[in-house]
Amino acid sequence: MKRQVNIAVIGTGRIGNVHTRNLVRSIHEANVVAVCDIRLEVAQAVADELGIERVVKDYHELLEDKDIEAVLIATNTNTHAFIVKDAAKAGKQIFCEKPLALDLADVNDVLDTVEKTKVKLQIGFNRRFDKSFQRVREIVSSGEIGHPCILRITNRDPEPPSFEYVKTSGGMFLDMSIHDFDMARFQIGEIDEIYAIGSVLVEPFFKEANDVDTNIITLRFSNGVVGAIDNSRQAVYGYDQRLEVFCSKGVAIAGNEAENTVIMGNEVGYRSAKPPYSFIERYADGYINEVRQFLQCVVDDKPVSPTGEDSRMAVLIGEAAWESLRQNRPISLKKFTG
Amino acid sequence: MKRQVNIAVIGTGRIGNVHTRNLVRSIHEANVVAVCDIRLEVAQAVADELGIERVVKDYHELLEDKDIEAVLIATNTNTHAFIVKDAAKAGKQIFCEKPLALDLADVNDVLDTVEKTKVKLQIGFNRRFDKSFQRVREIVSSGEIGHPCILRITNRDPEPPSFEYVKTSGGMFLDMSIHDFDMARFQIGEIDEIYAIGSVLVEPFFKEANDVDTNIITLRFSNGVVGAIDNSRQAVYGYDQRLEVFCSKGVAIAGNEAENTVIMGNEVGYRSAKPPYSFIERYADGYINEVRQFLQCVVDDKPVSPTGEDSRMAVLIGEAAWESLRQNRPISLKKFTG
Amino acid sequence: MKRQVNIAVIGTGRIGNVHTRNLVRSIHEANVVAVCDIRLEVAQAVADELGIERVVKDYHELLEDKDIEAVLIATNTNTHAFIVKDAAKAGKQIFCEKPLALDLADVNDVLDTVEKTKVKLQIGFNRRFDKSFQRVREIVSSGEIGHPCILRITNRDPEPPSFEYVKTSGGMFLDMSIHDFDMARFQIGEIDEIYAIGSVLVEPFFKEANDVDTNIITLRFSNGVVGAIDNSRQAVYGYDQRLEVFCSKGVAIAGNEAENTVIMGNEVGYRSAKPPYSFIERYADGYINEVRQFLQCVVDDKPVSPTGEDSRMAVLIGEAAWESLRQNRPISLKKFTG
Amino acid sequence: MKRQVNIAVIGTGRIGNVHTRNLVRSIHEANVVAVCDIRLEVAQAVADELGIERVVKDYHELLEDKDIEAVLIATNTNTHAFIVKDAAKAGKQIFCEKPLALDLADVNDVLDTVEKTKVKLQIGFNRRFDKSFQRVREIVSSGEIGHPCILRITNRDPEPPSFEYVKTSGGMFLDMSIHDFDMARFQIGEIDEIYAIGSVLVEPFFKEANDVDTNIITLRFSNGVVGAIDNSRQAVYGYDQRLEVFCSKGVAIAGNEAENTVIMGNEVGYRSAKPPYSFIERYADGYINEVRQFLQCVVDDKPVSPTGEDSRMAVLIGEAAWESLRQNRPISLKKFTG
Repeated sequence: MKRQVNIAVIGTGRIGNVHTRNLVRSIHEANVVAVCDIRLEVAQAVADELGIERVVKDYHELLEDKDIEAVLIATNTNTHAFIVKDAAKAGKQIFCEKPLALDLADVNDVLDTVEKTKVKLQIGFNRRFDKSFQRVREIVSSGEIGHPCILRITNRDPEPPSFEYVKTSGGMFLDMSIHDFDMARFQIGEIDEIYAIGSVLVEPFFKEANDVDTNIITLRFSNGVVGAIDNSRQAVYGYDQRLEVFCSKGVAIAGNEAENTVIMGNEVGYRSAKPPYSFIERYADGYINEVRQFLQCVVDDKPVSPTGEDSRMAVLIGEAAWESLRQNRPISLKKFTG
Repeated sequence: MKRQVNIAVIGTGRIGNVHTRNLVRSIHEANVVAVCDIRLEVAQAVADELGIERVVKDYHELLEDKDIEAVLIATNTNTHAFIVKDAAKAGKQIFCEKPLALDLADVNDVLDTVEKTKVKLQIGFNRRFDKSFQRVREIVSSGEIGHPCILRITNRDPEPPSFEYVKTSGGMFLDMSIHDFDMARFQIGEIDEIYAIGSVLVEPFFKEANDVDTNIITLRFSNGVVGAIDNSRQAVYGYDQRLEVFCSKGVAIAGNEAENTVIMGNEVGYRSAKPPYSFIERYADGYINEVRQFLQCVVDDKPVSPTGEDSRMAVLIGEAAWESLRQNRPISLKKFTG
Repeated sequence: MKRQVNIAVIGTGRIGNVHTRNLVRSIHEANVVAVCDIRLEVAQAVADELGIERVVKDYHELLEDKDIEAVLIATNTNTHAFIVKDAAKAGKQIFCEKPLALDLADVNDVLDTVEKTKVKLQIGFNRRFDKSFQRVREIVSSGEIGHPCILRITNRDPEPPSFEYVKTSGGMFLDMSIHDFDMARFQIGEIDEIYAIGSVLVEPFFKEANDVDTNIITLRFSNGVVGAIDNSRQAVYGYDQRLEVFCSKGVAIAGNEAENTVIMGNEVGYRSAKPPYSFIERYADGYINEVRQFLQCVVDDKPVSPTGEDSRMAVLIGEAAWESLRQNRPISLKKFTG
Repeated sequence: MKRQVNIAVIGTGRIGNVHTRNLVRSIHEANVVAVCDIRLEVAQAVADELGIERVVKDYHELLEDKDIEAVLIATNTNTHAFIVKDAAKAGKQIFCEKPLALDLADVNDVLDTVEKTKVKLQIGFNRRFDKSFQRVREIVSSGEIGHPCILRITNRDPEPPSFEYVKTSGGMFLDMSIHDFDMARFQIGEIDEIYAIGSVLVEPFFKEANDVDTNIITLRFSNGVVGAIDNSRQAVYGYDQRLEVFCSKGVAIAGNEAENTVIMGNEVGYRSAKPPYSFIERYADGYINEVRQFLQCVVDDKPVSPTGEDSRMAVLIGEAAWESLRQNRPISLKKFTG
């Protein structure tokens, strides 16, 4: 085995917990030397369960520690920008949850700092590491079904988040569709123009937050491919995650996974299992694979991916989507500056 | 059994042939007394095979015949308008293939005549009579999965028509997407606004015809529902006909049919059968059911559906789609007058 | 088109009705000149609906008519033997519903007569003409998945027949499994040995009739392939018709068809449509294709298939299955003489 | 959290490695204090990777250690009997891989010892802990689809083991079908009678070993249910693991899992992914869940399941299967004493 990377986790809430668990249990490339959370007791609980020795409240302590080579940042979105900048200045290799920031100017500012410090910055677009979405990309890239013509992405959450969350989330396009913008670029390439429509159809409080809970986003790619994304905040049958790339000589479709393989038949028909309920179950392997790749790139000193620029593009597209919705017209990304 | 309706078929080309065959073999409500085609030998061949006694070249002869109660019109699209008007003036009950005309003014003119003569006019939107699309509508209408939020329609032809055909087809939106516009109205209701993008990605001659071969159309319905249609002229794996209505408490999805049910597994995975190749196979039952319903309405003197107004709306939406593509902006149907 | 064959249908009950309808409406190779049923009014009703001119009560009248070249026999099973013999002696080409008789001696007697008269005799094992079962056979025959190793057949009726029917049906193996015995020979080849077990698990009156309503039959084929058939008289989710041929380099599986392609998802999972309810719907195409092939063989004077010998083997295996159940031991077909 | 159980793993080959990894990484109820293998370097490598401090060559050392409460035995099958006996005498709680022994007399001997010492003994029939097979059992047990009538199990390995392995494996029924015998009892209950046929169809060396590589086993259960198992040593499309319980009011079917959810369509049809290749991938969760349950039973002092008696029954049925094959007749388990 190659050397292990000393890594600290900053932010041990829901997704930070998942990452820490993965780092300790499934990612042999990692040596977790510390966890950090401003809610110290949250970090302590994770550390106790997983046998991590060092627990701190203030992430600056970790940045000063020369033995720590890398940090995984999974704090609240609004703290990503300054923690990444601090970590970059401290020379740490950085894995940061998406998005870098909800505001394009902030993203640009972070990327400037990162570029100057030459540290690696990988963004947690975990869906790129899902085996089915990767398989679609492989098939399409191989050319065996011709060139891509149409992209369709369905991304629907099982239930709406709280009103509190929604208010500061950046809205549906930056909080939820942003995954699809990145997936669209991953599968097809750069986007020229975007048009977004949306409604409040399942949870009235989205109106209060000037947000939508249902949307369709049309994409025009530089290579002529056309695409449509549809999103909803409430798919009662579970977390609906599907993708289709229609090509000139065929089609590749990634369907939903299922809780089990059982089919039950009775006098009213057949019944089969729902998709997994949450992103944590659905993308369990993706969360592991993305961090494993990050650490391998650190060890081998190779470029990481998805990059800060990928994060910038996703935020830019998200802001353009909002602009499109507000103005009810297609927005050219080339002309759009956020 | 109720009385049979004396019916004549005008136009016995590809689709007229299908209708005549159905009328004779599967639709007991019909008594086919004559077939008509300007290519007399085409009509004669159909008549010979099916045992129909009367064959004429000029449809006016049939309109003068008092014993003929109904006509089924399956001639070239550009002749629908004047034949329907003539038939209406002659007091015949009319089943006409879609679209009534490619130009909204012509459609309005026909509908004026039909309204004055009080004859019935049913339009051949056969997909409304497909059992799976009907089942989706039933499920959604029942309310058991809440109210609709998102509509998705995939409609992809197995291969492009000839250049000759394309040139006079009215273009992709009026020739192909028009089915989807009607299906959208059938499933969800009236459309407020439409936005269309398209590309030439599979067959270069579409450019020459100022047409596209690939498109995505975004719909905004009066009830807040959002929708996306995607179309292609070339799905090499067969005729791709899928539909999804996502609702607040569930989802209803109509998938493709398959040539057979066989799954073959070997060292590279599983293989299963393609969808039926053409609309004639895929919608075989729909073609029968729509005409059967028409004849039952004639016998019982009940209103038919889909109506001339449905045809008018489909053409109007098709023209709006072209306008949207040309101007690259969403088009409000309320303000749009073709 | 080649010449049409003048054919008469003898027996116009449930299945005879299906055949007559198919002959008139879908099988252009046929000219239906007469129908016959001892319940004259049943034959008359069919003739009226389908426009058949001649209706008789006594089939001998038809056998004497020199203009009738072929007969399709769909009377009660216990009359097949003597009608086939009479028809053969009259020189008619014969299509007869399965089985020829419930008793092996009777079958042998019929086959002797047919052989002497040199007429064609095709047996109505319609499942051989199902497109999915044929596709499995094609795949396996092609050798692309190696040689066959295991055969599995599932054949389950939607609901039990009446007690009256069961009493004279020949029992489950001769009334129901007989189709599977023929299918097993069609897919794999000759059977050496059979072992059958059964229970009464869904309808107590089968006990009274010394019959079973649930069974599993193990087959050992001459080429070393092993097979298992399972049957039930009551599959409440519909007519369950599945087949699997497992081979040394892969597998071919024919699954059930479905009433429609709709999948509905809600908070308890996905729901999809049942298989077609009855053999008439499930094997609609098979009923047409088998008779079409028969008539083509008559016109071209080619050998028909499945033959009387196929019927004999199916009855022989059925009797051996009963013997196996009674003695609770495997029965070698080579030694078994019924 | 309840207290952790100090456990040692004896045998760290292929499956012992899986268990050790699971115990350390995924089973919080465990504290792995030592690993043991007669190939000390194998145990050492596992210990190094997983951070286990104690490594021994001779399992007796572990049995003498009072701090070790439980042992997990994953050595070669022919060593299970004496190690279990030694562990039982030492008062350890025991989890042992199946089967206890290949000879019924040996199994009985072990169970006598275990009974006297009152320790817990759980057998590693991991398929009982598969979520899909458990779901089938739940559905059937709930009574919502009536009572069971027919059981079908398909169990096919991706490729044959080595000749060396086969020679000492106990043969197909004791090495491979034994899982299905246990699953049959898990799903339906006790078996009265068994009939087995088999062939050598994929790998000639099975003949040399007086073994078969393909079989079908018919089961008659005490409650009247009938069942069929089919097994093959070579399913080139992957590890084929399916199960069906047909009931008086419906059916429950557990299908195969798939490597990914991607469907690819092209001009020859659709292609989808194979099942996982091996039992380690297919039953990954089952391996975790069975050991977790064992440890919970140890902590709560509850009875474990599957028990030594379950193992005894599976071996007995396996021996009866061999007897049936040799004598070519059904064997009553009640009369059969191995």
